[in-house]
Amino acid sequence: MHEHIYPNECTYAREIAEGSRWEPTAIVESLKARAKRDGLWNLFRIGLTLGEYAPLCETMGRSLGFAPEVFNCSAPDTGNMEVLERFGTDEQKRQWLAPLLDGRIRSGFAMSEPDVASSDATNIRAALARDGDGYVLQGRKWFVSGAGDPRCAVALVVARSDDRAPRHRQHSIVLVPMSSPGVRVHRTLTVFGYDHAPHGHAELEFDDVRVGRSQLVGPEGGGFDVAQARLGPGRVHHCMRLIGAAERALESMCARVKGRVAFGRPLSDRGTIRADIAECRIAIDQARLLTLAAARAVDAKGAKGARKPIAMIKVAVPRMATFVLDRAIQAHGAAGVSADIPLAAAWAQARATRILDGPDEVHRETIAKLELAGETE
Amino acid sequence: MHEHIYPNECTYAREIAEGSRWEPTAIVESLKARAKRDGLWNLFRIGLTLGEYAPLCETMGRSLGFAPEVFNCSAPDTGNMEVLERFGTDEQKRQWLAPLLDGRIRSGFAMSEPDVASSDATNIRAALARDGDGYVLQGRKWFVSGAGDPRCAVALVVARSDDRAPRHRQHSIVLVPMSSPGVRVHRTLTVFGYDHAPHGHAELEFDDVRVGRSQLVGPEGGGFDVAQARLGPGRVHHCMRLIGAAERALESMCARVKGRVAFGRPLSDRGTIRADIAECRIAIDQARLLTLAAARAVDAKGAKGARKPIAMIKVAVPRMATFVLDRAIQAHGAAGVSADIPLAAAWAQARATRILDGPDEVHRETIAKLELAGETE
Amino acid sequence: MHEHIYPNECTYAREIAEGSRWEPTAIVESLKARAKRDGLWNLFRIGLTLGEYAPLCETMGRSLGFAPEVFNCSAPDTGNMEVLERFGTDEQKRQWLAPLLDGRIRSGFAMSEPDVASSDATNIRAALARDGDGYVLQGRKWFVSGAGDPRCAVALVVARSDDRAPRHRQHSIVLVPMSSPGVRVHRTLTVFGYDHAPHGHAELEFDDVRVGRSQLVGPEGGGFDVAQARLGPGRVHHCMRLIGAAERALESMCARVKGRVAFGRPLSDRGTIRADIAECRIAIDQARLLTLAAARAVDAKGAKGARKPIAMIKVAVPRMATFVLDRAIQAHGAAGVSADIPLAAAWAQARATRILDGPDEVHRETIAKLELAGETE
Amino acid sequence: MHEHIYPNECTYAREIAEGSRWEPTAIVESLKARAKRDGLWNLFRIGLTLGEYAPLCETMGRSLGFAPEVFNCSAPDTGNMEVLERFGTDEQKRQWLAPLLDGRIRSGFAMSEPDVASSDATNIRAALARDGDGYVLQGRKWFVSGAGDPRCAVALVVARSDDRAPRHRQHSIVLVPMSSPGVRVHRTLTVFGYDHAPHGHAELEFDDVRVGRSQLVGPEGGGFDVAQARLGPGRVHHCMRLIGAAERALESMCARVKGRVAFGRPLSDRGTIRADIAECRIAIDQARLLTLAAARAVDAKGAKGARKPIAMIKVAVPRMATFVLDRAIQAHGAAGVSADIPLAAAWAQARATRILDGPDEVHRETIAKLELAGETE
Repeated sequence: MHEHIYPNECTYAREIAEGSRWEPTAIVESLKARAKRDGLWNLFRIGLTLGEYAPLCETMGRSLGFAPEVFNCSAPDTGNMEVLERFGTDEQKRQWLAPLLDGRIRSGFAMSEPDVASSDATNIRAALARDGDGYVLQGRKWFVSGAGDPRCAVALVVARSDDRAPRHRQHSIVLVPMSSPGVRVHRTLTVFGYDHAPHGHAELEFDDVRVGRSQLVGPEGGGFDVAQARLGPGRVHHCMRLIGAAERALESMCARVKGRVAFGRPLSDRGTIRADIAECRIAIDQARLLTLAAARAVDAKGAKGARKPIAMIKVAVPRMATFVLDRAIQAHGAAGVSADIPLAAAWAQARATRILDGPDEVHRETIAKLELAGETE
Repeated sequence: MHEHIYPNECTYAREIAEGSRWEPTAIVESLKARAKRDGLWNLFRIGLTLGEYAPLCETMGRSLGFAPEVFNCSAPDTGNMEVLERFGTDEQKRQWLAPLLDGRIRSGFAMSEPDVASSDATNIRAALARDGDGYVLQGRKWFVSGAGDPRCAVALVVARSDDRAPRHRQHSIVLVPMSSPGVRVHRTLTVFGYDHAPHGHAELEFDDVRVGRSQLVGPEGGGFDVAQARLGPGRVHHCMRLIGAAERALESMCARVKGRVAFGRPLSDRGTIRADIAECRIAIDQARLLTLAAARAVDAKGAKGARKPIAMIKVAVPRMATFVLDRAIQAHGAAGVSADIPLAAAWAQARATRILDGPDEVHRETIAKLELAGETE
Repeated sequence: MHEHIYPNECTYAREIAEGSRWEPTAIVESLKARAKRDGLWNLFRIGLTLGEYAPLCETMGRSLGFAPEVFNCSAPDTGNMEVLERFGTDEQKRQWLAPLLDGRIRSGFAMSEPDVASSDATNIRAALARDGDGYVLQGRKWFVSGAGDPRCAVALVVARSDDRAPRHRQHSIVLVPMSSPGVRVHRTLTVFGYDHAPHGHAELEFDDVRVGRSQLVGPEGGGFDVAQARLGPGRVHHCMRLIGAAERALESMCARVKGRVAFGRPLSDRGTIRADIAECRIAIDQARLLTLAAARAVDAKGAKGARKPIAMIKVAVPRMATFVLDRAIQAHGAAGVSADIPLAAAWAQARATRILDGPDEVHRETIAKLELAGETE
Repeated sequence: MHEHIYPNECTYAREIAEGSRWEPTAIVESLKARAKRDGLWNLFRIGLTLGEYAPLCETMGRSLGFAPEVFNCSAPDTGNMEVLERFGTDEQKRQWLAPLLDGRIRSGFAMSEPDVASSDATNIRAALARDGDGYVLQGRKWFVSGAGDPRCAVALVVARSDDRAPRHRQHSIVLVPMSSPGVRVHRTLTVFGYDHAPHGHAELEFDDVRVGRSQLVGPEGGGFDVAQARLGPGRVHHCMRLIGAAERALESMCARVKGRVAFGRPLSDRGTIRADIAECRIAIDQARLLTLAAARAVDAKGAKGARKPIAMIKVAVPRMATFVLDRAIQAHGAAGVSADIPLAAAWAQARATRILDGPDEVHRETIAKLELAGETE
């Protein structure tokens, strides 16, 4: 991190700003090559338990928008690769998993839709209609992260394949090449003003897209099972990355307040700043311990068995991260809201995480339901 | 608002997106002409007390980034016009106040600097060195709002004119035409990813800029007096605009949750959403009452006499606005963080207000000092 | 207050501590006589609007557990007197209102019951069964404030008179003399360890108590109408008293921190203490403005028309008071939690107010319902 | 717990209420005998590490005011016993440690004083003046927990023995038998209305009390070293007990809301109640993980080396406990603030812990100082 990542964060930002915004950067490609050569590649599948991999996510999260890709550990690719590994056919693995593992292509995960309350996944309307021995996909997805990237070659799309099945058996997941006729990137969306180029959050249109049965990931009607298996570890990854971002923000805050003088004293002498620092330390350490415990629970009981601790970190950690980043922003003054330091961008990502991938409200419901049912971890 | 403003918000956004971003929009120019014709122009100086004008700020704040300029009531122009009216020479009024009042030019207010803790204004380093019968200005300012706009013709610059004077007599304010040799827009800054084009937050360089004595606003060494007179009413304006933005966010939130269904019920039936709505209503109404009381205090006692209530609203109102906007964003799901609705942009502006124009920490100090000294309103 | 109330607070506490706890104190009786003589008696009915009376409640609330009774303005007596004035028969007025107005007796209001969720008033089970030309009352009530006092001569009891009537016409209010056969003070309850002697919060048993039709207050089935009319102004009184308690706590906090030195500096120099002071000032002033606005709304639209602002203050003000009192307690160190200063006792009363007289949850529901229905104040 | 403790909580409360309040209860004495017989005695010194003992504190804390004494594990006795074990002379151990370990006597720890800001321990004024070959102790202490108990036979008193020594070498700790001439229990104090009989929080007067050199615990001037050694593990014990109290409160809350119906639905169906439950679970689990980590740090690095995590739990855990208890109180309605269930009493104890044993403000300063100095755990 100190040798290759931190010193190149500015290079990365500059390449994006000076390029077309939507092209891969030379610095990432060059660092990817180096990481691969040095054996720091696909760290999520080098045989570590989730509890062991989690601290690596924290380290990569310290450079939130940049480092994970360097090690081929960025969302949504890791989750997609895990799904393909577990549920994919040999053909699917050959065609998509291999180049993803190699870092040659990227991928998207298309679940949320603009016109329904996606917090309830059964609202998903994109339709997979039977057509001959395959399907026709019709619908619109948004906040498909990474799908603004020209290297994004394939999307995993959650769509409704059977209206008459039981409520959690109505949806299926299909692999849709971005080059399929009828697939269109309608636009890219912003998150608090950030377009997150070159990855981007895309709104995709699927207009009469032909999908073969061989593109199904898992069985027809098994969409929620596949999605759930994907989300548990993914939430641990997200949370640990945010912990890394928060930890670095606190370091940055401490350095800043030691160096700025107002009204005759360094800011680090101010009681409210010192209280902020103490509260940030308390918040980060609690969040990390909770997330590591959740990771160990996934290792021990699987994603389904660990859904209570996973729901807990999904509520607690992004909130902690927004709190810590907010305090660090405040301590940096006007620079804090600008792009000169990465705090505001990380804040926006942390804040969005309280909505995307299940809003706090839904996760709290999960926790309460299990608590009232007497489940203990 | 219903006839001319709300229906044109999209037009405004589209013109900016499709133009060069940094050009004035046709829609604003056309609405300005209409407002002028209809006598809804320069509302801040049509003889209303601050207590009477405040509700108009709230109304204009409902369309936060768009409406104020239509009525020639946007920051920093209103504050600059008030300063020129009160402290300007006849020549200054003729040259700058007249076209500002007419909406032909815009202006900037350059106080914060990138390399010092600007929360303590005595840290300001930009230097006005005596040179013949005038000065030479050297320094760097940032977050000069509106200075990204090509119509921005002049900046009021706070600079240090005498190192040996008493601490609050060391600074002066000068009028610097943006066309002066040595003035350069170094770059525009973002606020949580927003560039706020076409106005923008600029970083300005002043490199050996010649400034005549006739460009002084108020006496040499009177910079803080002039700035203080400017800031009191300006903070009431800012706060009322944020209250308008919050009020509209709550309306938008109520409409949204009535129309979205999750898990078989409209979101408006959910207890936590309903609690959010109630808390937003409580927070907005308290903030409005406090701000109107502060406005009446300024009317009765002047900006200096009302500095305690002004400091109170400066802490309370942007915090209320970030809270209400945050809850509205959450209720809108992923749309809330996007640019499809103006909540995230308004949130960013409200959050920045907790730093710009004096961070919360400084205003709380003011309140505490006066409270401990036994001052009652 | 400065001459007669504050200097006698200790006398009052000592008389209670040294007496039987459950006897009226000589100091209150003597001050009542003086207040009556000086025309400071029954201030709630000297022709003031609620908006005008509210500031008097704040003043009396500065000595929360002591002053209101001195001026015959304490709960639940004021509410009961207002009910009798408005709904009582001539005979009821002669028998109960006159001695209450004269301060010779006290009264209770018996609504909450121990075995049901009293937040939903339709849960009330105490039964008024028809019996000849009158009724028999059977049931159990608790948190009947003031009913521990030996002077408490009568209770207004809410009971179910008709199971088959529409949901809000099933209950009636009856006047039950405490001396009636079958009425028993089962015990007095504590609130965070305080018994609030000599008034007390009593649990009352009504065992086959004969109630004549002449004891009905208002019509049979009109219980909720009478209760609602009582609660609106009563909530304004409660809130203003808590504002008085909070205001005095802040004064006490400021005095304390100026006088204590830790680590070489007075506590008043500490940034977090100063921030607490500023936040308390902001919170108090907002709460007061909101409550005065609610009082004016009641004056203009009646208790029913003003139920939204009333619900708002019922949520906002006790919460503000617990916050301010908590900060004042913290600033006083160990003394803050003790009985040496009245902060902890006032906190307990403020905290209980978030449950009694309708929990926050119910009032937030009221606000949300009206907000979603588009009601504006 | 299920067989002997929970079923006897009411017995304990009844014995105190019906006895003189200030006498030991038969139920505790009988359970102590049983615990001793069953080998569940002095659990803090049966060879467990602090990390191993901590969960036992949690279990005992589930019955916060009752269970710890049954197992001879209650504060301040455990801390005093540890101090005597580590710093006591053989004679001191024989005279005081042996009967404490045997549960025949109890003890107090006298540090805080009423007239100074005790958050800064160097403010302590009680004076140990040299007199012949011993000392004379003069001073006043308060919040000496347990010293209201007639079995309290001895107090460890922190007093100033040398004004001219370096700031942290001016104080010494002496063992003062409660029966010494000149020792007087001036009064017992309340904590939010609770007198915590029969233990009590006493204010003690020491008026010309003769203290021999053999009564010194540790060397003269070593008072802070001894106190610090005592406080580290003690804070872990306190925190774990509060976690037990919070955990039980959450269970109680879940049971309550399943059983109460309002407005046609059980309270457990209400969104805000469910959100409260989820937030309580998140808060408790984070606090427990943090406290266990702090306990392990004490095991690994000693109390001094672990002062950062200890300061962190001292801030985080009592705050968590007040939050959880507050939400449980709210869910119980009026019963929650009463003595019918132990929530309000536990809340008061948790709240007091944010002041006693070092206020939050002091512990946050410790954390910030170490964080700014770059210390990592």
